[in-house]
Amino acid sequence: MSHAALAANRARIDQHIDRWVAGLPADTLHAPMAYLMGLPAKRVRPAAVLLAAELFGHDPEAVLDEALGIELFHNFTLMHDDIMDRAPLRRGMPTVHTRWNVNTAILSGDALLVKAYQLMARRPDVAAVFSAHALGVCQGQQLDMDLEGRDDAGVAAYMEMIRLKTAVLLSGALRIGAILAGAPAAEVDRIGAFGEHLGLAFQLRDDLLDAFGDPDRTGKQRGGDLRAGKRTLLLIRALERSDALGRTELREELRKAPEARDVDRMLRVLGELGVEAVALAEVERHHGLALGALDAIDVPGTRKEALHQLAHDLLGRTR
Amino acid sequence: MSHAALAANRARIDQHIDRWVAGLPADTLHAPMAYLMGLPAKRVRPAAVLLAAELFGHDPEAVLDEALGIELFHNFTLMHDDIMDRAPLRRGMPTVHTRWNVNTAILSGDALLVKAYQLMARRPDVAAVFSAHALGVCQGQQLDMDLEGRDDAGVAAYMEMIRLKTAVLLSGALRIGAILAGAPAAEVDRIGAFGEHLGLAFQLRDDLLDAFGDPDRTGKQRGGDLRAGKRTLLLIRALERSDALGRTELREELRKAPEARDVDRMLRVLGELGVEAVALAEVERHHGLALGALDAIDVPGTRKEALHQLAHDLLGRTR
Repeated sequence: MSHAALAANRARIDQHIDRWVAGLPADTLHAPMAYLMGLPAKRVRPAAVLLAAELFGHDPEAVLDEALGIELFHNFTLMHDDIMDRAPLRRGMPTVHTRWNVNTAILSGDALLVKAYQLMARRPDVAAVFSAHALGVCQGQQLDMDLEGRDDAGVAAYMEMIRLKTAVLLSGALRIGAILAGAPAAEVDRIGAFGEHLGLAFQLRDDLLDAFGDPDRTGKQRGGDLRAGKRTLLLIRALERSDALGRTELREELRKAPEARDVDRMLRVLGELGVEAVALAEVERHHGLALGALDAIDVPGTRKEALHQLAHDLLGRTR
Repeated sequence: MSHAALAANRARIDQHIDRWVAGLPADTLHAPMAYLMGLPAKRVRPAAVLLAAELFGHDPEAVLDEALGIELFHNFTLMHDDIMDRAPLRRGMPTVHTRWNVNTAILSGDALLVKAYQLMARRPDVAAVFSAHALGVCQGQQLDMDLEGRDDAGVAAYMEMIRLKTAVLLSGALRIGAILAGAPAAEVDRIGAFGEHLGLAFQLRDDLLDAFGDPDRTGKQRGGDLRAGKRTLLLIRALERSDALGRTELREELRKAPEARDVDRMLRVLGELGVEAVALAEVERHHGLALGALDAIDVPGTRKEALHQLAHDLLGRTR
């Protein structure tokens, strides 16, 4: 039932996005938008807008434009982040700056942000929430670049970075759906907290899967973050513990060039240090906080089923 | 008197911008904004917001935030255009991507656009006009890049490019000031037309000065556009005429690398072909259309003095 509700909303979103893409002019400014928006995607953030509106008794059809606006914003960040990260591929396809060029990816991304605002600025209250969350996403990307390769990145900075870069937009999407449904401010805060903790749990779990997941199921090479030397919660905690124990294997590997790192050795050390359990506990803690915020919302429990399903889809069976 | 009004409004704007800059955090995301916004500038667009509000009897102090928003947007376009144009200098100082790096200039520019919207999206009607004009500016930059180096660029494409890239934002600034002052739709259109024709006249005059101006007064090397092979109205018309006359000097020079071009020879040919008068007539035509639109606005003539002064400051004595 709740699964059906989620599927119905995803179908609505896909149709709305297809219509939007079909209406774009075929010029150099708009072709990259159509290309990126047309790649297969989970559409988690626009679904969140619809589900939050439905949670508070609002017609999901009435908030399709804002759901689209959130997805346009998300794709704007992908287009520009891929330039900054020099990423050749996105969802298995060439990134916009690879297929066209950097200038086109900058400019088309800019215009995509303006188009997102055309949908989000119809109501000042929605626009204000959207802008605050959009700035958070920019700050998250900046923090990510600042932290890159820094040896002293602590847990607090990492958590703030993933909060801004990942959790804030999911939280904003849910808040906006609730605002459009006319939910009271305290309930808007609760659904926002649900999204923020869910986003944090999702990102932490993603980091865990990178190191300990089944490559056949994740579709990624195991230990990609370790090879890149990315300071995730796992690696930060592992370095703290190994330093305290006087173990040097991780620091030795990190001193090497990425392609020379012995990822299996690093994974073995992580296993011996027991940091998987530490990170898993953190996933479960945020998962619990998310569900607690959802529980506290004063609507009939049956209306919450689709959001429970969304959390389940994002986190799988971590508890 | 009108000069005093213009000066008073510029002082208000400078103060408002200084306060905004002083309130920015000192991190990597915001430092480039403070740097670029702090460079000396004419602040024509924010002045236009205040002057349009005053024209319709509104307190200019009440629209300072929107004036700031327009200037933030303008600086966002400068930050990103300078990356695309690989410009090392802006107003005689290193550009943001030169002083920091390209990634920082992309991201700080993105955040600057969001900050512009925080000020422009407080009213849906203002946000809608702002977005439409912002998209126009993006389309203008795209058209500029598309036209670059193309041999078949015609007058129509060039005029559309400068309309979008230059005239549209001035027009939008004036429209927004008028909307905030509660002006009727027909008057908003008139002040918008004033801005568009003024912007076109300004850009065409700028092109003329590049070729025929006094380098001591313009502060630029004479013929910089010709050396770069930029298809301005002057060069497009000159090529049409020289092709019709079977003259080949311009095409010969354009086939050379920019640094090898004989700019004095190109200027001599332009002079012989009489295209200066053609371009000057076009400046005067748009100047006249701008003043005609201003004249048609139904407010006491004394209120129009500051906008006449603005037109005079931008165009000098072309008529």
